[in-house]
Amino acid sequence: MTDPVPHRTENCLKISQVLSRIGDKWSVLIIMSLRSRTMRFSELKRGIDGISQRMLTLTLRNLERDGLVTRTVTPSIPPRVDYELTPMGHSLAEPVEALGTWAFQHIDRIAGAQARYDSEEL
Amino acid sequence: MTDPVPHRTENCLKISQVLSRIGDKWSVLIIMSLRSRTMRFSELKRGIDGISQRMLTLTLRNLERDGLVTRTVTPSIPPRVDYELTPMGHSLAEPVEALGTWAFQHIDRIAGAQARYDSEEL
Repeated sequence: MTDPVPHRTENCLKISQVLSRIGDKWSVLIIMSLRSRTMRFSELKRGIDGISQRMLTLTLRNLERDGLVTRTVTPSIPPRVDYELTPMGHSLAEPVEALGTWAFQHIDRIAGAQARYDSEEL
Repeated sequence: MTDPVPHRTENCLKISQVLSRIGDKWSVLIIMSLRSRTMRFSELKRGIDGISQRMLTLTLRNLERDGLVTRTVTPSIPPRVDYELTPMGHSLAEPVEALGTWAFQHIDRIAGAQARYDSEEL
């Protein structure tokens, strides 16, 4: 039998490349927002508290580059820009949502653990 | 009926606090490594390519503070330090692993999408 560790390490590296790109919080919040429907830039900006225009533009462009989001421009006056998850984006939304649900369910326990840790450190 | 958006925004904010902490790639790789068994510091370092001693120490301390990992010191010579997922850490490992699996399955399609995007940009 061969040692499984080198293989696992290689997988971990590949995975870490993807995770570091899709795992940032703005990408996660955009993907979760687009899960239910197509949205305009201004709707995304309103729905995601604290995101700057620049960061939203940048993150959407990266998601589009990754093949997770499509950007459709309707040449009206003013032009209308819609963002939508691709089928691959929808398939990513499922594990992302599971992680988001976990985070929401455990945020109070995590805060409690942190308070205990910090008081023990004194 | 009340507008669901403010509620969703509040949830998103809470979730983003947790995700920004647990969603970084080193945390993910450590959690995935500890899923199957308890590991020593040196084993973790060997198994996670590219992580520095300092970053591993820092990330483990944050995971311990969050209540996701326990650190056990055995006072042998030299002292032995073991890291283990807590039950909450194990419950996080499930969605994290689902995301990791997705990442591994789609890395080639993402690379293809990026290449297409970059060639269209010219």
